[in-house]
Amino acid sequence: MSPKSSRWSEYTLRRRVLFYEVDSAGIVHFSNYFRYMEEAEHALWRAAGLSIVRREAGVGFPRVAAAFEYHRPLRFDDEFDVRIQVTAVRERSMRYRCTLMRGEEKIATGTVAVVCVEVEADGSMMAVALPPTIAGRFTAVPEAGG
Amino acid sequence: MSPKSSRWSEYTLRRRVLFYEVDSAGIVHFSNYFRYMEEAEHALWRAAGLSIVRREAGVGFPRVAAAFEYHRPLRFDDEFDVRIQVTAVRERSMRYRCTLMRGEEKIATGTVAVVCVEVEADGSMMAVALPPTIAGRFTAVPEAGG
Amino acid sequence: MSPKSSRWSEYTLRRRVLFYEVDSAGIVHFSNYFRYMEEAEHALWRAAGLSIVRREAGVGFPRVAAAFEYHRPLRFDDEFDVRIQVTAVRERSMRYRCTLMRGEEKIATGTVAVVCVEVEADGSMMAVALPPTIAGRFTAVPEAGG
Amino acid sequence: MSPKSSRWSEYTLRRRVLFYEVDSAGIVHFSNYFRYMEEAEHALWRAAGLSIVRREAGVGFPRVAAAFEYHRPLRFDDEFDVRIQVTAVRERSMRYRCTLMRGEEKIATGTVAVVCVEVEADGSMMAVALPPTIAGRFTAVPEAGG
Repeated sequence: MSPKSSRWSEYTLRRRVLFYEVDSAGIVHFSNYFRYMEEAEHALWRAAGLSIVRREAGVGFPRVAAAFEYHRPLRFDDEFDVRIQVTAVRERSMRYRCTLMRGEEKIATGTVAVVCVEVEADGSMMAVALPPTIAGRFTAVPEAGG
Repeated sequence: MSPKSSRWSEYTLRRRVLFYEVDSAGIVHFSNYFRYMEEAEHALWRAAGLSIVRREAGVGFPRVAAAFEYHRPLRFDDEFDVRIQVTAVRERSMRYRCTLMRGEEKIATGTVAVVCVEVEADGSMMAVALPPTIAGRFTAVPEAGG
Repeated sequence: MSPKSSRWSEYTLRRRVLFYEVDSAGIVHFSNYFRYMEEAEHALWRAAGLSIVRREAGVGFPRVAAAFEYHRPLRFDDEFDVRIQVTAVRERSMRYRCTLMRGEEKIATGTVAVVCVEVEADGSMMAVALPPTIAGRFTAVPEAGG
Repeated sequence: MSPKSSRWSEYTLRRRVLFYEVDSAGIVHFSNYFRYMEEAEHALWRAAGLSIVRREAGVGFPRVAAAFEYHRPLRFDDEFDVRIQVTAVRERSMRYRCTLMRGEEKIATGTVAVVCVEVEADGSMMAVALPPTIAGRFTAVPEAGG
């Protein structure tokens, strides 16, 4: 993990499977992986000294694409790591890659793309440039295999 | 929609956004689209005279991949359609495509791939062929644009 | 159900159990009953020509108390009715009673109390009187057993 | 907190509000408090060397009643404590009390009652005595104000 004074590229969150996240097949419901990924993204932002819902900044970060591949199931009480990596910081958007590991076992791999928007008074959203105070806190991990 | 006596390729579910599905930005949380897609998949199975959790069949259908692209936000109380289409029926797996529409507006497009598994006594899963009673109920939609 | 031109006291919502609402014991997770109750409350408001999240009214309805007693489990794909009844309309608050039925079987009984608040610019909430346009749409059911 | 070798009466879980737990009013959705209470209950069981879903024990713990009173809202990223206390250990049931605190502020107080059941092959449930290996790990907190 990068020092606080420089740019952040990744963060790893340690997590335990909660009872209500498990479905009737005894495994974590596939929709919850997207929540785990978001939770790690927010932890990365917090580590970088930012909050993803800073009202004063006047911008939001809705998702434009999200995907997961599921390799092995997670079960109740399993401890696992959610590693999120910045793969792109562009003018108006960011991309992340996410890997879930239970010890040495790869559980799942995901991606998410977010766009920076201003929310108008009527609730409509318009894509805008990332504020420098946000863009300046992140940098993409070097190109590599997932 | 296909008649009951033949094979099913698609189903459209009419749905309304519930309060607890909306996040603090006032739009449906992106993880819930995966739940909408699954809900439509189960409605398709029900229409085809099947249940996705028939214990007696001894098989289950965990997801191996899922993705969504988000085009426009959904808000509280919005009515929308979730159209699910079978895009592949293979020996041990199925694939679906999903389109969310609010009237004439395209809200989101998704895909999901499921694999047919037998669950062992110890909870482990092994990929097996789709039972003929299931495979025989579905057929892929003709090739077309996404 | 009352006619549109008079005051509403109750509403019954027909619902089906969704896959992701069921936990690993094969029954609906107890937290979801509170979401069912809220869903019926919102359907009652909609029937009465109101929306519980009308921004223009400038008021919100956070919950101050909620409870359920669970009599029988609900399982995947079960169809059930969620009957919500207004039990009190007071100056700044409302109370509801809720009964879940699967056919003739009583599944669960709940209550919820909400308070009418104005949300200040800083996000803080202050209890205020129900607007007459809202209070005038509801009346409590006559006293009786649940 | 009690030592591992004796009986457990309470546990306090430190938690942070996640983005998807917050509703469009900007506060934690009231249904999630029941999930927080369960999460603390499971943490208490884990601390006591037990798992609430031990299949080998052949018993489960469905809820028969649950309630919350909400004093103050919780917002995104808030850190808070979920303190769960055993208030009764009976032949076939247990009761808990739960207090959510954000620092010195009382956020909410809840209760939950669970019953010990055996699950039959057909999925039906029958109340049975708590196994001694479970009952022997807990004792109620001394009588006191909440």
